[in-house]
Amino acid sequence: MRATVMYRAGDVRVEDVPDARIVDPADAVVRVTRACICGSDLWPYASMEPSDSGESMGHEAICVVEDIGSQVSMIKRGDVVVMPFAHSDGTCAYCHEGLPTACVHVGFFGNNGLNGAQAEALRIPYADGTLYPLPVGEDDALMPSLLTLSDVMGTGHHAAVVSKVAPGKRAAVVGDGAVGLCAVIAAKRLGAEQIIIMGRHPDRLALAREYGATDVVSERGEEAVERVRELTGGEGVHSVLECVGHGASMETAIGIARPGGAVGRVGVPQHTEIPGSFPAFFGNITVGGGPAPVRAYLDELLPDILEGRIEPGRVFDRTVGLDGVPDGYRAMADRESIKVLVTP
Amino acid sequence: MRATVMYRAGDVRVEDVPDARIVDPADAVVRVTRACICGSDLWPYASMEPSDSGESMGHEAICVVEDIGSQVSMIKRGDVVVMPFAHSDGTCAYCHEGLPTACVHVGFFGNNGLNGAQAEALRIPYADGTLYPLPVGEDDALMPSLLTLSDVMGTGHHAAVVSKVAPGKRAAVVGDGAVGLCAVIAAKRLGAEQIIIMGRHPDRLALAREYGATDVVSERGEEAVERVRELTGGEGVHSVLECVGHGASMETAIGIARPGGAVGRVGVPQHTEIPGSFPAFFGNITVGGGPAPVRAYLDELLPDILEGRIEPGRVFDRTVGLDGVPDGYRAMADRESIKVLVTP
Repeated sequence: MRATVMYRAGDVRVEDVPDARIVDPADAVVRVTRACICGSDLWPYASMEPSDSGESMGHEAICVVEDIGSQVSMIKRGDVVVMPFAHSDGTCAYCHEGLPTACVHVGFFGNNGLNGAQAEALRIPYADGTLYPLPVGEDDALMPSLLTLSDVMGTGHHAAVVSKVAPGKRAAVVGDGAVGLCAVIAAKRLGAEQIIIMGRHPDRLALAREYGATDVVSERGEEAVERVRELTGGEGVHSVLECVGHGASMETAIGIARPGGAVGRVGVPQHTEIPGSFPAFFGNITVGGGPAPVRAYLDELLPDILEGRIEPGRVFDRTVGLDGVPDGYRAMADRESIKVLVTP
Repeated sequence: MRATVMYRAGDVRVEDVPDARIVDPADAVVRVTRACICGSDLWPYASMEPSDSGESMGHEAICVVEDIGSQVSMIKRGDVVVMPFAHSDGTCAYCHEGLPTACVHVGFFGNNGLNGAQAEALRIPYADGTLYPLPVGEDDALMPSLLTLSDVMGTGHHAAVVSKVAPGKRAAVVGDGAVGLCAVIAAKRLGAEQIIIMGRHPDRLALAREYGATDVVSERGEEAVERVRELTGGEGVHSVLECVGHGASMETAIGIARPGGAVGRVGVPQHTEIPGSFPAFFGNITVGGGPAPVRAYLDELLPDILEGRIEPGRVFDRTVGLDGVPDGYRAMADRESIKVLVTP
């Protein structure tokens, strides 16, 4: 079968690899019908050290179940399923608490040797706990939006939940990538009265406005903090949805938070320390977040997509086949594309 | 009148200063009946740069109201009151939200030129919003415990609230100073099933056990993290009450938190960055806290003291008059005393 492998920064290839197959009785093998390239894939694309074996890439997909192991009981052959970016057993305490990304059997697709989803097929450990069947056919028109449930929409929602967005509150979204745009949808959906999007790309900011952003801030650093304060009566926002992961963006996030407010960070951090210890402390600002438990959010988010209330699939502005994946990485890295959808 | 002034690290004097007097119509002037020395006073005692004018010291007190300004309506002359460590107007949005330490008119006693409480008397701005009348006489036997409501008991409670202590949860308290000991009381009070106290002073640890600590960890760094994991089935604790403020203690705090857990930090931070960005992120661990809204916690905590359910006043193990304050600093800095009570 064909799959995407990254060998070093900037070197992404689509290659023949051994076919996916059942290894454990709790596994499924799925055929990927939709995958995509993630903003977090751009971190290794920018900085990965050379590797002889390479890293299998991709962690977002809609799939059709092709085969199941003998212990799989909830998932059937032929099911159209969302594949969350992490697998989880569905039975441990963390899964029951709604934090499957801390599952005692967690694994992240396209990481640490686990097979990736920018491929024709892949093996899904703990299929019953991981996969989420959809009530639609594999070519349903809603596929782009449904695909975002595997990561970016659930991740934007996590930022909103952790930053305690609620009706009447003021929110700011740091970053105008696909996760930031989904975070705008999530903030609107949870009732934020004011939603400030912080970014510099006109096409993305235009989409953010359509998604419900009320204000745009394109300044950076101290100027950005000042601008947000102007827009919020000097106070800052109750909720900051941090969707970048840089030290500078975290510093801005804490700087624009209202005293007693919360920062929900979902951008994969690029630094070992969180800046802003003093302003966070003296403002009683909470900093939380991490890998979103997207599997746990599916029950809540899916109906809004099926019934057309949210359209996160609009973040995809380019579609490629599997052979187009390397150029898709380039296009996203060059900011030619917000997010690339892959039809293997 | 006599008051405590710090001129540089290690140089604390009790001196004649101008009498406290009404300056603003919202002020009160109070006579201090009980004050104390705080662990946070030891930071400048260790490191303060020389100052010609000095810094007025002390931010915890029980007082009797001597005089009130023309706009004061809730507080009367003769009232026995708790003086929280910060003044607040009681009317702004933050005060109404229960975060008076973010009041638009906030000020911290014994800081930035605001008069301190290790004195015979002091001026209280925004007396109506700040002072909390007590239903007891000025020499009530409960005075030591009531005095802790001005800071350390409310601060320990804040750590427990922010770290989401709840019935059946596991908690760890980092630091065995007066705040840490009060944090043990708070964790017990909110129903924690397991309470691990982390410290190295036998007398304090003994008191922590009496307050409800179930386990003691005296290791540091990685060894401490390992030990807490052993005590919690490998998982870590749901709630970490960080009562020190050092970078190393924060790193430990994040290291012992269970995935999805929370760190409530109330130790005044000594570093510009929060360590542990990666483990906090990948564990979805929330870091919050700051100056405790002790004024807002009084309604909840006072009955437990009046009715004898908690005895935070046992953290005081030495009492001095005003002239004994400089030696009180020394005794606390040398760890001869947990916390020194002052009877001006």
